Amino acid sequence: MIIRMSTLLARTLRDAPADAVTDSHRLLVRAAHVRRVASGVWSWLPLGKSVLDNVTRIVREEMAAIGDQEVLLPALAPVAAYEASGRADDYGDLLFRLADRRGARFVLGPTHEELFADLARDQLVSGRQLPLGLFQVQTKYRDEARPRSGVLRSREFLMKDAYTFDADEAGLRASYAAHREAYIRVFARLGLAARPVAALSGPMGGSESEEFLAPAAAGEDRYAECGSCGLAANTETVVGEDAGLAEKEAVGERPCPRCGAAALRIGRAIEVGHIFRLGTKYSDLIGLEVAGADGRPVRVQMGCYGIGISRAVAALAEQTCDSAGLCWPDAVAPAAVHLVAAGGGERARAAEELAGRLDRAGVRVLLDDRPGLGTGARLADAELIGVPRIAVVGRRAAEGVAELRDRRTGVSADAAFDALPGLVGAADANTRQSEVG
Amino acid sequence: MIIRMSTLLARTLRDAPADAVTDSHRLLVRAAHVRRVASGVWSWLPLGKSVLDNVTRIVREEMAAIGDQEVLLPALAPVAAYEASGRADDYGDLLFRLADRRGARFVLGPTHEELFADLARDQLVSGRQLPLGLFQVQTKYRDEARPRSGVLRSREFLMKDAYTFDADEAGLRASYAAHREAYIRVFARLGLAARPVAALSGPMGGSESEEFLAPAAAGEDRYAECGSCGLAANTETVVGEDAGLAEKEAVGERPCPRCGAAALRIGRAIEVGHIFRLGTKYSDLIGLEVAGADGRPVRVQMGCYGIGISRAVAALAEQTCDSAGLCWPDAVAPAAVHLVAAGGGERARAAEELAGRLDRAGVRVLLDDRPGLGTGARLADAELIGVPRIAVVGRRAAEGVAELRDRRTGVSADAAFDALPGLVGAADANTRQSEVG
Repeated sequence: MIIRMSTLLARTLRDAPADAVTDSHRLLVRAAHVRRVASGVWSWLPLGKSVLDNVTRIVREEMAAIGDQEVLLPALAPVAAYEASGRADDYGDLLFRLADRRGARFVLGPTHEELFADLARDQLVSGRQLPLGLFQVQTKYRDEARPRSGVLRSREFLMKDAYTFDADEAGLRASYAAHREAYIRVFARLGLAARPVAALSGPMGGSESEEFLAPAAAGEDRYAECGSCGLAANTETVVGEDAGLAEKEAVGERPCPRCGAAALRIGRAIEVGHIFRLGTKYSDLIGLEVAGADGRPVRVQMGCYGIGISRAVAALAEQTCDSAGLCWPDAVAPAAVHLVAAGGGERARAAEELAGRLDRAGVRVLLDDRPGLGTGARLADAELIGVPRIAVVGRRAAEGVAELRDRRTGVSADAAFDALPGLVGAADANTRQSEVG
Repeated sequence: MIIRMSTLLARTLRDAPADAVTDSHRLLVRAAHVRRVASGVWSWLPLGKSVLDNVTRIVREEMAAIGDQEVLLPALAPVAAYEASGRADDYGDLLFRLADRRGARFVLGPTHEELFADLARDQLVSGRQLPLGLFQVQTKYRDEARPRSGVLRSREFLMKDAYTFDADEAGLRASYAAHREAYIRVFARLGLAARPVAALSGPMGGSESEEFLAPAAAGEDRYAECGSCGLAANTETVVGEDAGLAEKEAVGERPCPRCGAAALRIGRAIEVGHIFRLGTKYSDLIGLEVAGADGRPVRVQMGCYGIGISRAVAALAEQTCDSAGLCWPDAVAPAAVHLVAAGGGERARAAEELAGRLDRAGVRVLLDDRPGLGTGARLADAELIGVPRIAVVGRRAAEGVAELRDRRTGVSADAAFDALPGLVGAADANTRQSEVG
């Protein structure tokens, strides 16, 4: 595939939005990955949509690999279900609410525990169908009081939410563990550093939950980790939400609440996933039961598991960017190589020829074929957009040699056109192919 | 891939919903493809989601093949844009409206002409970037007065909407023609009989439009075709919306309005696509211009092009079903073969072994491994679900021979296990592989 900058909807910007305070907000806008429509409401442009799709594909593959079945529930959800569960009150103003032409009231679903429990009650016939795991990749809504940081905390966002159903607590523990492991694989494949830490369950309810936190200065969550006993937890669980724990508290200034050692470190992070053992909270509400092994009804144990897909894109941008721009890992990058001709004429023709060669080898190429643009501007855009490799067709074009530069390290070396499909394609193919099933 | 009925979320129903009057509504519910959440609001269960995904993939491939770039705009759209275009009034009660916690007013977008025109104005720098084609696959909303017929006319639905931008009318005509041809390819690949007919443009505006109509008794549109001159048009364009043209008017009872021949036939159909030459309606509203060849600004000519993806699933169901159930074409079917053991014990083990063999050959298998169910019930479910081929492992199981039955024709023949991956896989692979690029 050759993506041509001459026609690509990707007008890069020199300046970031005045209200942007995080790197991902600044860079995703400047690199034409996203565009603001309203406060907390964003469009995904072709480059950003490509990254979003790549993240989605990896999440979907790992969910399927643990046997979860994909469904799609509506965003329009009857408000009655959320009133019955108490979440209408718990969420309060965070819920977008609307009424249809007949006055029937709906919310735009923030998550779907109630509707999934109802679906399971309708569909489950026997306990032999358990364990059951369902997931969807769906647009979700939260009317944030202060939407900010671009797609890091938006009001319309893409989420993967999964729900499990088990006949007993041991089953729930196994389902929870399977999803926890799948999440670790997802973030590893994405190239996103994210770790599970103990968390409060909040309005979702349930007995236990863990957040997957991606360390980043732009994060709105804080976590504590103890260098001695290994405790890792959202600071809310350690010291309470209002304790005003200093963000940059030095190691050891406060003793670890578990082991007492003076080795507690505080960090900021982005919540990219959250997994919950819900137990029977939602099953109790609607009487979700199946026939157990002895034929008697048993109350179904539920778990729920979310990944913020659009937020993961922002978290990846935060963790990998540098002063020159975005720096996508191979697994999610919109292309494997960004091809730049340093000059027109013969060099531009050589770049075209090389692009064709790479394309025929199955390599995804972003080709800067914009007319009348200087090499400096092209290279600046290439660094801003953050494709993992930049190939410059310059003074050795006539020899059939390009300069291949690693976007992240800046290390470059000359490479023959003949060798480039192999060099670029190998790294690209490894990350693109499904690593499961 | 082996999909196991024992764990699949697919509780088939003997009875259709009392309010279901169309085949697709009855069968998609009975075959556990969709489930009602509220009036006109539906969930897609795993089998239905698979069909929906297959339709989406084909649409996406054909849009990419003509160079359209994929983006994703928000469903939450500021109402101001729709007020400026007049569509807020034109759509009236069809628009879902809501306000956020600060009172800012939004609609849930029914289509996105205004936001795409705004996006193009922001991104286009030069006329050399034209022609430009953009598309998205997105959940859309219409507060229908009478949502009915299941996913055929729902209030939350999946749509592909594309928008083109050209520097002049000749360019628009070319973009329109390219999309028209792409739509013909899409419907051919889906196995959906659908033809372009002249249509009224309605609130979308513009100078010319054609609908793609899929003939079906359950359709809410009527079209006229002349056996003499070839006229094909929505009856609205021929006789006006309120003329009460009889649905089953016999050929020749009314003269063709174009050629006068007594050869006009009236039919019912489902609108699965609609393409519009919008001209400058939306460009004029916001002053969408680019620098032309002579450097002077030219007003951009727009086209828009929709395919109702969830509706296409229902239309396919309508056109292909029979009295026993759904009957999916290969290109969209949730599996290539439905494997049924006629009995337990050795036959069930043979079916398992055959499923593994088919899976290793890359064939998508739906395996009925539900315990304690009679062969009659299994076969009835297989016919209801509508996978294109049913393989029955029965009395010749010990010889390694199954009965392979064509779901549509009912024709069956014995086939050796060895031969089945080839027999089933060839047809499946042909339709699954991308036919473009």
